[in-house]
Amino acid sequence: MRRALIPGSFDPPTTGHLDMIRRTARLFDEVYVVVFDNSRKNNMFAAPVRLELIKLACVPLAGCKDMGRIIADMSQDMLCDYAAEHNIDAVIKGARGGVDFDYEYPMSLVNRSLNPDMETLIMPSRAEYQHISSTAVRELLKYGKPLDGYVPDEIKNRLSDILNKK
Amino acid sequence: MRRALIPGSFDPPTTGHLDMIRRTARLFDEVYVVVFDNSRKNNMFAAPVRLELIKLACVPLAGCKDMGRIIADMSQDMLCDYAAEHNIDAVIKGARGGVDFDYEYPMSLVNRSLNPDMETLIMPSRAEYQHISSTAVRELLKYGKPLDGYVPDEIKNRLSDILNKK
Amino acid sequence: MRRALIPGSFDPPTTGHLDMIRRTARLFDEVYVVVFDNSRKNNMFAAPVRLELIKLACVPLAGCKDMGRIIADMSQDMLCDYAAEHNIDAVIKGARGGVDFDYEYPMSLVNRSLNPDMETLIMPSRAEYQHISSTAVRELLKYGKPLDGYVPDEIKNRLSDILNKK
Amino acid sequence: MRRALIPGSFDPPTTGHLDMIRRTARLFDEVYVVVFDNSRKNNMFAAPVRLELIKLACVPLAGCKDMGRIIADMSQDMLCDYAAEHNIDAVIKGARGGVDFDYEYPMSLVNRSLNPDMETLIMPSRAEYQHISSTAVRELLKYGKPLDGYVPDEIKNRLSDILNKK
Amino acid sequence: MRRALIPGSFDPPTTGHLDMIRRTARLFDEVYVVVFDNSRKNNMFAAPVRLELIKLACVPLAGCKDMGRIIADMSQDMLCDYAAEHNIDAVIKGARGGVDFDYEYPMSLVNRSLNPDMETLIMPSRAEYQHISSTAVRELLKYGKPLDGYVPDEIKNRLSDILNKK
Amino acid sequence: MRRALIPGSFDPPTTGHLDMIRRTARLFDEVYVVVFDNSRKNNMFAAPVRLELIKLACVPLAGCKDMGRIIADMSQDMLCDYAAEHNIDAVIKGARGGVDFDYEYPMSLVNRSLNPDMETLIMPSRAEYQHISSTAVRELLKYGKPLDGYVPDEIKNRLSDILNKK
Repeated sequence: MRRALIPGSFDPPTTGHLDMIRRTARLFDEVYVVVFDNSRKNNMFAAPVRLELIKLACVPLAGCKDMGRIIADMSQDMLCDYAAEHNIDAVIKGARGGVDFDYEYPMSLVNRSLNPDMETLIMPSRAEYQHISSTAVRELLKYGKPLDGYVPDEIKNRLSDILNKK
Repeated sequence: MRRALIPGSFDPPTTGHLDMIRRTARLFDEVYVVVFDNSRKNNMFAAPVRLELIKLACVPLAGCKDMGRIIADMSQDMLCDYAAEHNIDAVIKGARGGVDFDYEYPMSLVNRSLNPDMETLIMPSRAEYQHISSTAVRELLKYGKPLDGYVPDEIKNRLSDILNKK
Repeated sequence: MRRALIPGSFDPPTTGHLDMIRRTARLFDEVYVVVFDNSRKNNMFAAPVRLELIKLACVPLAGCKDMGRIIADMSQDMLCDYAAEHNIDAVIKGARGGVDFDYEYPMSLVNRSLNPDMETLIMPSRAEYQHISSTAVRELLKYGKPLDGYVPDEIKNRLSDILNKK
Repeated sequence: MRRALIPGSFDPPTTGHLDMIRRTARLFDEVYVVVFDNSRKNNMFAAPVRLELIKLACVPLAGCKDMGRIIADMSQDMLCDYAAEHNIDAVIKGARGGVDFDYEYPMSLVNRSLNPDMETLIMPSRAEYQHISSTAVRELLKYGKPLDGYVPDEIKNRLSDILNKK
Repeated sequence: MRRALIPGSFDPPTTGHLDMIRRTARLFDEVYVVVFDNSRKNNMFAAPVRLELIKLACVPLAGCKDMGRIIADMSQDMLCDYAAEHNIDAVIKGARGGVDFDYEYPMSLVNRSLNPDMETLIMPSRAEYQHISSTAVRELLKYGKPLDGYVPDEIKNRLSDILNKK
Repeated sequence: MRRALIPGSFDPPTTGHLDMIRRTARLFDEVYVVVFDNSRKNNMFAAPVRLELIKLACVPLAGCKDMGRIIADMSQDMLCDYAAEHNIDAVIKGARGGVDFDYEYPMSLVNRSLNPDMETLIMPSRAEYQHISSTAVRELLKYGKPLDGYVPDEIKNRLSDILNKK
């Protein structure tokens, strides 16, 4: 049994994140999708809300043929500790270009120094999702723009509900 | 059963290649290491020699615990055709920096357009192997320098034999 | 009639900005130079001051032969909404290197998704202005250094006046 | 009247080239699309064939509303001489990422040193065409793969004819 | 007599910084290692503590054969003013990749515009220190991880003492 | 006594090369400027001609105050062997951007593995010379364009003589 970990802040999760989850689940038996709560960043949504949104987005993937099991979780541990505890074989990070890669590279080396058994793999984003990021979604939300294409349909309505309550 | 493919020209295979093979074999059940013979490039070693060198280098990996089976092969097919024929799930490409990533990215998109079921993952090179490349090895060979560290011990002697015969 | 839009925070406008405005005005009939007031950024100068500085800097360009009309403005709208309202054909962004391009690229794709009729073009900075940025000007101001070459002469004195009043 | 120039080797022209031509023609009154015949490169198709293919691909653009006139041409002159002779205001180069930009940047500075009145603008490729290049098309042709999506329909059949005759 | 300046925030100094200092001291007669106290950044350690840590780390380098004298200092001046006052010939900045270089490049041009006699040289980091940064050290400290390899042994204990007192 | 080495193909030497030589000579006691003759590259000028051109270009630097001695040379050795034989302390390579840096970086690591005592430093090009390269000069020569600004005056006439004789 091989396990992958997709870490992120998922503030909020996007169509691009869901694509990464789906593609990773075709390659591993279990995929942990984990909201790491980095208190230094000023997030738009609280960690439990982000976890709830990931769970909503992943509903259509449950029980798909040829796909590993998806486990959504949140953690305040350091990535390498969480990974060691859950027997993670590979961390999967998305990249939309060389600048993303150069950002991930030293972090992958730090993680290797802390946990030599854990691999880091970089998954190139699909061309059609290259402009989709949590930052872009937050900008669209700020100006009240429709989110079609940017977030999975499953969480579009939930986002509206959350924002209406604010 | 999940299968990965490590394509390359391997002219010659290096310590960095072997590290990639070992790391990939810990994540997949079968790893195809395939010399793709691109006739436009003027290679130093003929494709069958490069295949022989890969096989030599992989001898110490055979039968290792927790590692998938390694299959060395050569092909003149297009990558996506070879992959389809051998039920490859993911192509693994190494990258030593953002420039490498930006080189691999459009190729991964072309392969996706030809074979949507095949994933491409980028494996960041280990820091200590970052300067090791087939180009560097050929340069060292040209000036008669020792190859220690640059190529696996298993193929160092074989390379000397080949070059002495020339 | 074709219209270009040069968006920015212009905090403050620099010699490099003025060069972009001049070069763009030779290619379009109308050039909107617009201070977009992103409240999240902590600007040194208030938006109306930045607008005033742009107007001062553009005085020498008014009525030049073979140059389009320059309109300075400020807005709190989203870029794509402002552009749609003013019938903008192309957004012009400066870039001093590949890193700048990679920063602008996903934003241009987001804008295309919101407003498919609006083009984004990247204008390479002149070599001699490559080190000139609002950030550098603010740093020079902080240490009381002369701004010659960094900002247009038209606004150098105005900047001194403003800072003396503070 | 403002004129743009799209230079290239167009070996062969692709869907991405046609997209650039269409987008440029919406911003300029005349667009010169010029095959520059650089004898050092070993092209797959002769320059007159490449010119013919461009003309074929541009047929659907002729007479479109809100679009400038498209002139296809070939030349063995230096780019800046051709541009001066044809009163070109701006050279338009496509870029798919920062690496492309960094490649174009020094060339734009050389052209500015030779012809200070001529502007260079970089047009970011559309995300969905990011993997499409003449290199990819030649690779697909080499292995007899279908070109759908990679080249305009207008030239797909013509390419087959040419290759069948070889 | 030739003098180099290694500026930084050193929050805290790392094994990578010490390597840069050692390598620079082999090329210059005097090496100034200077904590520039940029009040906008929210540092983990106060400037005098960072200066003390640099001094501790440099103890083993004192009096080494073939090495220039090392002077640790702190300053609130602008870099170019400090350099002019201390007759610095070259500023040495480390870089772990092209992204770092592109960050340093415009700053080196600003410094040249202010102080044409002062050179900037970029020192590529050693491969084995490529993942070591003050940011990584602060992250390790945050989670209580051991710092072996990341900071010089001379300051490891001092860091523990400081943090225990907090 | 500290010695620097500026290696290159210098085909032909440019204003940018001369700037690098001048800047390096202010930091080192001796500067070796060495034409490394890489037989795989198809050079425009023979190595002895390139060496002669460097010598011509460096005439105005001879005997300048505060500058190290400049030694022009040519070699077919591997860089690290030449450096070891001549007691070189640092190799100086120019870079015009991050892409250049990423190209030099692995080579600097290979050289370190062969000769740990030899340092590599990257010298950022001056902004105004950023577009000047041997490639650009050869292109200008090909089309019979004036070389003013691109090559030192000292070698401009010599280049004309050489080409007239061809």
